[in-house]
Amino acid sequence: METSGLTAHISRRFNKDLEDLRNKVLAMGGLVEAQLSLAIKAIVTGDSELGLQVAIDDYKVNNLEVNIDEECGRILATRAPAAGDLRLIVAIIKTITDLERIGDEAEKIGFLASKLAAMDRPADSYRELKTLGGHVAHMLRDAMNAFARLDVDDAWEVVREDEQVDEEYEAIQRQCITFMMEDPRSIKRVMNVTWCARSLERIGDHAKNICEYVIYMVQGRDVRHTVVPETTDS
Amino acid sequence: METSGLTAHISRRFNKDLEDLRNKVLAMGGLVEAQLSLAIKAIVTGDSELGLQVAIDDYKVNNLEVNIDEECGRILATRAPAAGDLRLIVAIIKTITDLERIGDEAEKIGFLASKLAAMDRPADSYRELKTLGGHVAHMLRDAMNAFARLDVDDAWEVVREDEQVDEEYEAIQRQCITFMMEDPRSIKRVMNVTWCARSLERIGDHAKNICEYVIYMVQGRDVRHTVVPETTDS
Repeated sequence: METSGLTAHISRRFNKDLEDLRNKVLAMGGLVEAQLSLAIKAIVTGDSELGLQVAIDDYKVNNLEVNIDEECGRILATRAPAAGDLRLIVAIIKTITDLERIGDEAEKIGFLASKLAAMDRPADSYRELKTLGGHVAHMLRDAMNAFARLDVDDAWEVVREDEQVDEEYEAIQRQCITFMMEDPRSIKRVMNVTWCARSLERIGDHAKNICEYVIYMVQGRDVRHTVVPETTDS
Repeated sequence: METSGLTAHISRRFNKDLEDLRNKVLAMGGLVEAQLSLAIKAIVTGDSELGLQVAIDDYKVNNLEVNIDEECGRILATRAPAAGDLRLIVAIIKTITDLERIGDEAEKIGFLASKLAAMDRPADSYRELKTLGGHVAHMLRDAMNAFARLDVDDAWEVVREDEQVDEEYEAIQRQCITFMMEDPRSIKRVMNVTWCARSLERIGDHAKNICEYVIYMVQGRDVRHTVVPETTDS
């Protein structure tokens, strides 16, 4: 099976540089996951300071991206990797771009959380954003696990999950429009909710992108813009 | 000067593969520019069919991305390029990701245009979207020109222009909120305007990203997340 072949190859022959690089990407993923989790917490608990802190801390994500990018360039230039090693580097260059953009969305959510904290709070403490945020955080964690284990089946699972996230997102947008029509005084507040939902939905897209790179990395096959298989047995 | 050195290098020594690759990226940029221009036209003229056609045609952008991506992988694997050539390939891998995302935003604008065409039309035919769209289309054209000519000064100009686009975008969002509060019956329609404005603003971000890759390509310096110089003489 291709997956185990590549895994064996990694464990046997990938040199320390490549292992370090993979670990850095996983660390960057961990940081981005933490940023997302704190941003959602700031929304749900109405914690303005926490929201702003998430926004301030985005520079850490950016620094990691630049650092990993330079490392990829160095390895490409000095080692001229081939086949699976080359696909790993290309996939990492793309993955960190998506992780950085997830960081940007978490930053936006942090700012929005601080705005929302200063406004009237609904009785349900933004339960719909908590649910969508939890779902998207789960997708991101699964995406990074699929990256860590080079697991194509798990990667496809995340790609499929994105459709559910899109449906949840559409439902929130419809709900927001209903709220605003029923109570036009809520418009300013509810617009911030729609922006939060939009950022969360975008994070789902980025997690999906990362999984498509994992599939490319393992199978050497570009599955973007193709039909998603119902199961991965095919 | 570094620019002319790299340009001379390209004209003298870059082989046909690399020239073809650059030309493909420029063709992809041209297609994406056309998609954006048609999407804006569909909004302004209330042409539902045109909007849907833009959305349908997005597959052409996707196909070009996959094709160029494969070509980059092939060149990296078979030629192991170094220095400026390597930076060109890495910059292209990133550039086409942003061009593809611009295509996605044009697709969204196309769908929104077809929705808006079926709703009441304001007397000014969405002049604010036309203005923002024109500004963003200009940024995209300048970004592709900077890419074509490896012109760092022009690239910085686009990066700076993004701040103006962001301001225009914020103004439209404030205007939309005012409209909705004054006439809650307009909420559904105006929400589509806010999504259009958001997509246009995102396209500005992507054009800016492309220019940052141009600067990296020419100078070998990663300028993302750094302070934008007021002039490029520094």
